[in-house]
Parts: sequence; structure tokens; C-alpha cells
Amino acid sequence: MDKKRVIIVGGGFGGLTAAKKLKSNNLELIVIDKTNHHLFQPLLYQVASAALSPGDIAVPIRGILSNKNNVDIILSEVLSVNKTDSYVQLKDRQIKFDYLILAPGSSHSYFGNTDWEKFAPGLKTLNDALTIRENILRSFEEAEIIEDKSAKNDYLTFVIVGGGPTGVELAGSIAEIAKKTMLKNFRHIKPEEAKVILVEAGPGVLPSYSEKLSEIAKKDLEAMGVKVLVNTRITNVKSGFVETGSGIIKSKNIIWAAGNAASPLLKTLDVELDRAGRVIVESDLSLKGSPNIFVIGDAAHATDKNGSLLPGIAPVAIQQGGYIASLINKEVKGKARKPFVYFDKGTMATIGKAKAVAKIGRMEFSQFIAWFLWSFVHIFFLITFRNRFRVMGEWMMYYFTGRRGVRLITKHPE
Amino acid sequence: MDKKRVIIVGGGFGGLTAAKKLKSNNLELIVIDKTNHHLFQPLLYQVASAALSPGDIAVPIRGILSNKNNVDIILSEVLSVNKTDSYVQLKDRQIKFDYLILAPGSSHSYFGNTDWEKFAPGLKTLNDALTIRENILRSFEEAEIIEDKSAKNDYLTFVIVGGGPTGVELAGSIAEIAKKTMLKNFRHIKPEEAKVILVEAGPGVLPSYSEKLSEIAKKDLEAMGVKVLVNTRITNVKSGFVETGSGIIKSKNIIWAAGNAASPLLKTLDVELDRAGRVIVESDLSLKGSPNIFVIGDAAHATDKNGSLLPGIAPVAIQQGGYIASLINKEVKGKARKPFVYFDKGTMATIGKAKAVAKIGRMEFSQFIAWFLWSFVHIFFLITFRNRFRVMGEWMMYYFTGRRGVRLITKHPE
Repeated sequence: MDKKRVIIVGGGFGGLTAAKKLKSNNLELIVIDKTNHHLFQPLLYQVASAALSPGDIAVPIRGILSNKNNVDIILSEVLSVNKTDSYVQLKDRQIKFDYLILAPGSSHSYFGNTDWEKFAPGLKTLNDALTIRENILRSFEEAEIIEDKSAKNDYLTFVIVGGGPTGVELAGSIAEIAKKTMLKNFRHIKPEEAKVILVEAGPGVLPSYSEKLSEIAKKDLEAMGVKVLVNTRITNVKSGFVETGSGIIKSKNIIWAAGNAASPLLKTLDVELDRAGRVIVESDLSLKGSPNIFVIGDAAHATDKNGSLLPGIAPVAIQQGGYIASLINKEVKGKARKPFVYFDKGTMATIGKAKAVAKIGRMEFSQFIAWFLWSFVHIFFLITFRNRFRVMGEWMMYYFTGRRGVRLITKHPE
Repeated sequence: MDKKRVIIVGGGFGGLTAAKKLKSNNLELIVIDKTNHHLFQPLLYQVASAALSPGDIAVPIRGILSNKNNVDIILSEVLSVNKTDSYVQLKDRQIKFDYLILAPGSSHSYFGNTDWEKFAPGLKTLNDALTIRENILRSFEEAEIIEDKSAKNDYLTFVIVGGGPTGVELAGSIAEIAKKTMLKNFRHIKPEEAKVILVEAGPGVLPSYSEKLSEIAKKDLEAMGVKVLVNTRITNVKSGFVETGSGIIKSKNIIWAAGNAASPLLKTLDVELDRAGRVIVESDLSLKGSPNIFVIGDAAHATDKNGSLLPGIAPVAIQQGGYIASLINKEVKGKARKPFVYFDKGTMATIGKAKAVAKIGRMEFSQFIAWFLWSFVHIFFLITFRNRFRVMGEWMMYYFTGRRGVRLITKHPE
């Protein structure tokens, strides 16, 4: 009997979990990713804010799957999917599949204003994080030597667009670096000159949390020196400033954390997508009319038992990846499918040192306890022992010394 | 009394040592560097070979000098020096000095063939190291999926030009990664398909060591699977191959470790330079005719008491930086100068796991003992506790598991 071939597109949380749990002795497994590494995305903002190294939160996919039989890993991009003939199209070849698991993730959405991207980079890849890190560090260097007050001000103003978890975590962590860590290293910058502004279109930050936690998060940010502008919509982004309904904010550091758009690959599937470009999947996460093609993670529009959209977070992707692996493992032995059920273990977001918010079931936490939970969970879920050791080391060092580890500018300015 | 202003150009071993040891309470100190970090260059090849992260061996100069008074740090490039009016010229301004310490380092020399650089990058900066790392990792990815035997061969051939310490350390460490670490992660590459070739124009590798140690280093490399070509001069480098007197070697990974050229800044001094572009300095390391301008590190052509040229290694730069600091500290109090004397504490080069060579005075070491010395000295001299902790962690992990920590491709291919 020929082995069934499963292709997994994307080595993020969903794709990697599926790859690990598929019984590859009875299958032929191919993992295709644009990068060579699995990225622990929840800590990516710490690379952008110079707290961690890329190597602390990224691990080669080959390394993770090296002990598995019958796994091929391909560093390449899938350009399209052919449903009728069951193959994926790469740049230079086609690969047929029996099962296809699409976990391509998402990128930033500028709501149609694609020209904003070059003035307000987003944070999805290691390269994005390094670009933002360089920008921040270089701005301090410029501000240190510049004489003109207004120009100096522009370099020391940091605007983060979007008050979801990424925006909040970035704003908190940039406030720490800008108002504390960096300053004793500069002679011509005063703490009050550095401004961190978080702009959110809705009525509060962290909209997926309760009003109470959202309010706590806002207060925590403000206590750290972040100016939080709610109910404020960005109407334009240009080099050096953003325009809002209530005026212009000048800044050399604008970071985009506002919207997600699912991978453009999904458009080639010729199925119904939601407004964010996600595939509206069946109860078994498969494509309507193509039971052998699955979409998981933040590329999928899946709902829980109450009909609410599942959020684009790691636990959802991990559970979906595990579910599909088990479904395929069983189906090749002739067993029937059951629908996917999400088990909500809680969510959390960190704001700064000893400040975070968390909800677990009906319980809500904030301050030190939430932050401690957050630290524990994130170290626990890091892929390898090596990463755990390094990240814990960095965090302890930072907690006690207040120094950021990785304040490096490696690229040359354009 | 006005404070004397000392400008230090370059935050490498020499410049940083001078900055640390100058008594800045009585002086005004300005450190100018093109990058924001001090780089522990002896371990740079380990970043290129994916063993260490950039953040493990680089520390922000501001951080190192943050506890010192009257130090200004400027991220900028010095374009020229005006000896008559005692100022340095930056892109957008001039800064006057009473004393000038030039420690700008060196870059690669292609012996006039500047067009070779794009096909055979050298290893001087963090950016260089990341470029080489990406190249190596991407080559394995290409080799894994390519069908054509000859093209696959090109990706799996690594040519290192130059058999000095950098060349030897790179060759050894690429052999380890190519013939051991990586292979269990790939399904379509066999150990014998990976070829590492070290090309040296002279009769042996490590020409600054004894013939005995040079021979041991060559044997060690060969035992690790490196093909060592001595008496072989490179006559041409193009995309995808090098030409030698005895034929063409095809390779997608050509790394240049053959020659050094001192910083072009030195040409603006209008003094005698040696063939490598180094300033021929006086016995107090000052410029002939300009006793307030000093050149140190591998930008200086200084000699020991026997008249031999001092090598371009960290201990020389460190001692010279310390010497100048003490000279200036004393001279501002009216004391006379004494000439610089180099104290040779020994040199060492590593070849691979538990393989190295070292000479200390008349004693020579090789194998495990030299490697142990090397590891100890390098960890001991790393700038901060944080770096020591991280590097030691990585090395222990590698020693026991054989895994390389930082096998990341972050940039997109051009």
C-alpha cells in the first residue's frame, strides 16, 4: 500500500504541532515554509525592543523535526493550490498531496493603504523585529547629537498604532527602554523628552479582554509614561508623521500593530473568505467541498460552540494542529471524523515589568501575579531547553539590573 | 583651566581600553564609532558558523562606558583628520581635539581586485557574519531539494581563502557544521558530499606559528574532513568559482580571509603608510610630527624590541590602548613620555571541538589542552557577565549535544 502524502504549509504553531503529532511512519510528510525556522511569535516584540536575540525565540524547523521519519522539509513559498488535481505550486515545481494542511499565518493589514507600510512597519517576522529594533536604537543615537529641538523631538516620539496585545506589549516595552534603560547611557536626552504614544481606534485597549482588565492595562501603561489615545482613528501615514482625526503626530518611529490580513495564498483556493481574508472552514476545519484540505491558525475563520470567531492566538493554532493530526492518523485507519472543539485555557498579555493582565476561565488577574503567570507560561512553552535557558537568563538579568541585552545596530543605514 | 579634549576613533579593543583607562574626570572624552557596539572579534567566526548569536559577542559601547563621567559617544564615521587645525571631519560637522587616538581597525584586502568582494565576502563586522551564515544555511537548503548532481555539488562546496587564524577557525567550524551538525537534519545530503576547502598561498597554515604547530593544525583540519591546499594562489574569483594556479574550484560559498587593509581614513593623515595601509608610528605610537595624534591596533605599524611588526591581534591593541591612556593621564600632569613596549602573553587559534594550537612564550600546546586554554581565555575576556554566561551556555550545550544554536535565515534572498 502506498503511503498517503500530507503536505503542511507553514511551520508556525499550528503547522508544527500537526507535523509533530502526525504518525509519520505510516505517512509521507512534507513541511513547506518560507523561512527555515519556527518563530515563537508571542515574544517577537521583545526582539523588537532589544530584550531578546532572534536566536532566543526561533529554532530551525529541521532541528525540531530531525528525529522524525519520513519528513521532508522544503524552504520555499507555496504560490497556489490546485484543488482539482491536488497539488501545491511552488516557484519551480508542483507537489501532489493526499492531505493538505494550510497554516500560512497572516501579515499586516493596512486596510487598503499599502503605501503606509514603508512608513509604519509591522511586526510579524524576525526581519521585521530587527528593522524596528534598529530604528529605535538609531533614533536615540540621532537624538543624542541633534541640536534642533523639534527634530530631536521627532526622533524621541514613538507611535504605536493599534491597542491589541501586540500594540500594548510593544508600547510598554518601548516605554521601559525609552524612559529607563537607555537614558543613563545618553548625556543629551532627558526622560521627559521621550514620548510613547499608543493609538487605538476603539474605546479601549485590549478589546478582547473585559472592560475592567482593559482599564487596568490602560492605567498601567499610563503609569509607565505611555500616552494612550483611544477612540482615535489613523487617517493617514507619511514619512515622519501620522494623521488622526484630532491632529497630526510627528514621529520618526511609527510602528503598525493594527490589523491582520490572512496570507494571500488563500485567495487561490477559490472559496469563501471573511473580511480579513481568512477561509471560512467547516466544523472539521476542512475546506467546503474539499475534505482533504484543512486550514488552521490565523488563516482560518473558525468558531467556537457559541458561534464566536476563535482568536488568532497560539493556543488555537496548536489545538487545531493537534486535532488535524489526530484526524488524519485515524482516518487513514478508516475511522470517522469528529468536529473540532476549542478548549479555552485563558489568555494573557504583558504590559511591563511586573505588570500584566490574564483571564483564565472566569478568573481575571493583573499586576505581579498575572505577570508571573505570563512569564512562567511563556518560558514553559518555548520550544527547546536551550531557548528556555537563554530567555530565562535574559529576563532574570533584566529584572535585576534593568539592562536590555541586545541593543545592537548591525545594518547600515540606507 | 579648560579640560583637554581626547577624541577616540573606534570602539574596538584598542579604543575601548583607552576610553576605559583615561581619567575622564580631568578630561573631556569623545568616542566615535561607525557602529553602536564593541565587537568581540575573535569569536566572530562563531556567529558566521551559527554557533553564537550577535548579541553574545557584541555589547553597546554606551553600556560599557555608562558609568564614566565626561564621555560623549557618537555613532558616526570620521571622514578625515586635519592635523594642522586639530579637528576630525564628520559628515555634518567638525570636532576639535587636543589628543586624537585613532583605532579604526582594518577591513579586507582583495589585493586590488575589488570586484572579488561581492563573490567572496570577508568577515569583519556582525553584518558580514550574518551574511555568511545565511549563505551557508541557504546553500544546504538548496542542496537538499536540487536534483542536478553538479549544481548540488556547488552548493555543498565551501571554499575559504586564506590560512591565517580566521581562515583556519572558519574552515574547522564550517567542517563541523557541514559534516556533522547539519546532516541529521537533511534527508538528501550525504556527509561525503559536503566539501570544505582551505586555500593558502604560503607553504603552511597559521604562518605566524611554528612549523610544528602549523603542521598539527593542518593535520587536525584534515582529520575533520577539510581539504587544505597550501602553496596555492587564487588568481580569479567570479560568481560560483575561484581560479587557482592548478585549476578551477566551483562553489556557491566562497569566503575571503586572506588579507587586511587598514582603514582608508589613515590616508587622510598624509604620513608614511606600509603596504597594508598601516601608519608607521613612532616609539610612543604617535604620528611623526604630530605628537598629539596616536594610531593603535591593526591600523598601526608598530614594532617590538627586535624590530618585528606587532601582529593585528586583540592583546596588542589592548596594551596599546592602555599605554596611550596612561601616557595622556600623566602628560596632562606634566610628566614625560616613555616608549611603548609590548608584552607577548601568547597567541592561540582554535580548529574544532577539543582541537586548537597555542604558544605561550617558548611553550607550545595543541589538542585538548590548547582548546581548553583557548575556551577559558575567550570566556574570561568577554566584556560582561551576561556575555560570559551566554557564550558558556552555548558552548556547553554544543559540546554535549553537538547542536549549533543559531541556525537562522532571517533575510530574504535577493
